[in-house]
Amino acid sequence: MTRLKKLKRPPRITSSAAVGGRAEGEGPLGGCFAYIDPSDRFGMDTWEQSEAESQALALNFALAAKEAGRIAPEAVIAGDLLNQCASSSYGLMNSGLPFLGVFGACSTSAEGLLIASLLLETGLYRRLAVVSSSHFCSAERQFRSPVEYGGQRAPTAQWTVTGSGAFILDAVDAGGAYITEVLIGKIVDAGTKDPANMGAAMAPAALDTFLSYFDESGSQPGDFDLILTGDLGREGSKLLRALARESGRDLSNHNDCGLMIYDRKKQDVHAGGSGCGCAATVLAGHVLPAVRRGEIRNMLFAATGALMSADAVKQGLTIPSIAHLLRIEFRKEQ
Amino acid sequence: MTRLKKLKRPPRITSSAAVGGRAEGEGPLGGCFAYIDPSDRFGMDTWEQSEAESQALALNFALAAKEAGRIAPEAVIAGDLLNQCASSSYGLMNSGLPFLGVFGACSTSAEGLLIASLLLETGLYRRLAVVSSSHFCSAERQFRSPVEYGGQRAPTAQWTVTGSGAFILDAVDAGGAYITEVLIGKIVDAGTKDPANMGAAMAPAALDTFLSYFDESGSQPGDFDLILTGDLGREGSKLLRALARESGRDLSNHNDCGLMIYDRKKQDVHAGGSGCGCAATVLAGHVLPAVRRGEIRNMLFAATGALMSADAVKQGLTIPSIAHLLRIEFRKEQ
Repeated sequence: MTRLKKLKRPPRITSSAAVGGRAEGEGPLGGCFAYIDPSDRFGMDTWEQSEAESQALALNFALAAKEAGRIAPEAVIAGDLLNQCASSSYGLMNSGLPFLGVFGACSTSAEGLLIASLLLETGLYRRLAVVSSSHFCSAERQFRSPVEYGGQRAPTAQWTVTGSGAFILDAVDAGGAYITEVLIGKIVDAGTKDPANMGAAMAPAALDTFLSYFDESGSQPGDFDLILTGDLGREGSKLLRALARESGRDLSNHNDCGLMIYDRKKQDVHAGGSGCGCAATVLAGHVLPAVRRGEIRNMLFAATGALMSADAVKQGLTIPSIAHLLRIEFRKEQ
Repeated sequence: MTRLKKLKRPPRITSSAAVGGRAEGEGPLGGCFAYIDPSDRFGMDTWEQSEAESQALALNFALAAKEAGRIAPEAVIAGDLLNQCASSSYGLMNSGLPFLGVFGACSTSAEGLLIASLLLETGLYRRLAVVSSSHFCSAERQFRSPVEYGGQRAPTAQWTVTGSGAFILDAVDAGGAYITEVLIGKIVDAGTKDPANMGAAMAPAALDTFLSYFDESGSQPGDFDLILTGDLGREGSKLLRALARESGRDLSNHNDCGLMIYDRKKQDVHAGGSGCGCAATVLAGHVLPAVRRGEIRNMLFAATGALMSADAVKQGLTIPSIAHLLRIEFRKEQ
């Protein structure tokens, strides 16, 4: 039984778009966002509704791209970190699209893209959308304390990205970025209990996914232009590379969306970015355009998610994690 | 663009199992559960962990059925009502199975079965598991008040089912219950704001799904042995039938899992059962065995979900809902 699945009709990621808030706009990838709202509010009255609105915006930008060709998707697959995935439901309910909610914490973008790829593989669907989001203020309120409280943050803590990434996938072979292989993550519980160090909780899940991939595919890390994780941040990235080295795999071409989205020297984000919006915006706004231009031709993308809830942490449970993997390749029109 | 998708290789629901708590055991379907825990605790210390454990138990019962043939599934698709779908992550992390988290509130069982069906349709997967759960006490604590508070319940309120349903689907054509068609639900917001009347919030979503199905398939409600909804309860069921009648469709063969699982005359459950575990346990423990015996040969199953969060209700938002549909048919071995 193989976990790695090679797609017979690899779907194309036709267009993608990211929207973000102030910190994202001030970061090194600020120019990659289709829209930046320096107020972080996206015109709404509450942080939860702001996050929901960012999903609607990102989807609309992805649909408006000329490559998307004004054809409505047959369904949208979406998820987020808020309780009951409320950003997705409220953000996308006016889209009028059939809707599948998914939850993978910060791995949601990869999970959504993976499921969309498999739905397109059936041949029954021709075009699908994927959206995910997070918001610093809604996440702080839900998982830690309201921002007004001004709680101190641990140096290992990460900064939840305010933003949303959206993707349009289709079955049209017109060249660009294709998802060619997928691998569903397993839940890995390495026994960590510190909710201020998600990187340490998630790195073992990323390791499990990458080792499974390399074992089953017979490939080496060096075969890829880029090995990209979702939001391990500084702690988790160091840990992943060290753990991989112990297993005989050199991930020197590894980078992490949480390290790319902010300038950790100038921005007070501690160990880097996190949240469903982290991998989603960096992939949608920065990485996929580079694939479409042919600058990245063969990469692995594994968004990582810490699957605990605030209640589970209060009950003293460990933090289980997961990492879903996609291989993304540049292909010319056939 | 059609929402209704006819599967070219309809997957078989090879085995299914339900576990429940005291009220479920005392209800008219008590004999359909593989396991009843009269303490509702499933051996755990907290309600959240009790719910998680019920998922592990249900999956193990479904896997242990002789029809399941001792072959491990390639992945499990699971979801629940708790924040961050924690019952699924904590309940299934020791299964060692690749894991896809889904969120559709009380429609989760149908969403999971729908995604599993489409993944099997690709031919890349041969066997998948689907699990979902809810728990009266964890849901009360999260959405309303802890049970110890003893808050009064409105007559339109429903009773969250304590229990979990698990399903094993495979690509082996050996006769039994098959999923032959699927239709992804749209988010429907009928403007209701009363969290003590979920039936009223969800009925318009069920209506949208059924009308789309009948329009696209050209079939009539009377063509089916059973039209089954997830957990509309008394309020929502009456509303759905009245709305359908206004649209010229007679749903006289409609029943609702929330009306079937309890004896509303003897059990103090107000408008009936609800929760991800409602549709999941009734389908897994009661309805699918009847399909496998050939007593039900052609049915529609649409689990309904109310997609609000407690925060959204506090912020005065309306309650958007969704209903995913499966056509389930009895087929002899070909």
